[in-house]
Amino acid sequence: MPTISQLLSDSIRDVPDFPKPGILFKDISPILSDPALLRHSMNELTATSGGQKIDKVVGIDARGFIFAAPVALNLEAGFVPVRKKGKLPWQTHEMAYSLEYGENIVEIHKDAIQPGESVLLIDDLLATGGTAAAAIKLIKQLDANLVAASFLIELTDLNGRELLGDTPVNAIISY
Amino acid sequence: MPTISQLLSDSIRDVPDFPKPGILFKDISPILSDPALLRHSMNELTATSGGQKIDKVVGIDARGFIFAAPVALNLEAGFVPVRKKGKLPWQTHEMAYSLEYGENIVEIHKDAIQPGESVLLIDDLLATGGTAAAAIKLIKQLDANLVAASFLIELTDLNGRELLGDTPVNAIISY
Repeated sequence: MPTISQLLSDSIRDVPDFPKPGILFKDISPILSDPALLRHSMNELTATSGGQKIDKVVGIDARGFIFAAPVALNLEAGFVPVRKKGKLPWQTHEMAYSLEYGENIVEIHKDAIQPGESVLLIDDLLATGGTAAAAIKLIKQLDANLVAASFLIELTDLNGRELLGDTPVNAIISY
Repeated sequence: MPTISQLLSDSIRDVPDFPKPGILFKDISPILSDPALLRHSMNELTATSGGQKIDKVVGIDARGFIFAAPVALNLEAGFVPVRKKGKLPWQTHEMAYSLEYGENIVEIHKDAIQPGESVLLIDDLLATGGTAAAAIKLIKQLDANLVAASFLIELTDLNGRELLGDTPVNAIISY
């Protein structure tokens, strides 16, 4: 019997040269479009809470939303989006992070998390870790208790974990 | 007792002048961050399938993902993203639609839906209807059976429904 992680891993489609030449993109569409694999992926990510009470599940724009909202429902928690600059309508904190060329900025609503609330951060992919590290800084700025950061896929060669400090990191599939 | 729709409607935050002067933005963050309201919103959207078997739930980038993924899980269906141009890694169909100034393009993977499959389209907001109309064209291009298009919020003054042809349209909250 393959493990759930193997089943999920076997379903991912490798797309060469996306989004640019030399990158082998891990396309999760075949997991999303299959009802059983979709459910498995959500259950595995939900389990990364380790049974701890979670108040808010934070999802990162945009593919992170696909996983974070169901995990929030599973954990009876609220859902909080971290979005690219200019997308959130209310008062925000913002955090810049470096890209290969230039920088990006992500934001969170100032009232999205109350001090002391327990938070699980979810995204589809941990690559270089820049976006996740920025999201973690925003969550900590709101004085939340960040329980863990959980990803469907981790590209281990890129050492993204090293950017995430002392936050416990979980990945369902590792390459 | 307020209805579920009233409970949800009462929780929405009006943000003036976002994303530009003169627009009163309907901020759904207070629904998302409350576990009970989050669950209510998903259950109401799920019920718009009317008990019909749904094979794929299509969500529109990015806020539509928040609702479409849980609805797909509820209906034991697959999830399919419609995304802005350049975001989907595999072979796509694309569809342009007009904005106030210029145009946007959305895409769907060519293999995301099989001919004859039953589809429910989900987004957070029906405003002018341009994005939803483009998504509907993409779904029909894949020879799917579009059961309905369902939105958390409809801004009725903007007559977005008129762009959606003979597709049954559901809205949980109407303004």
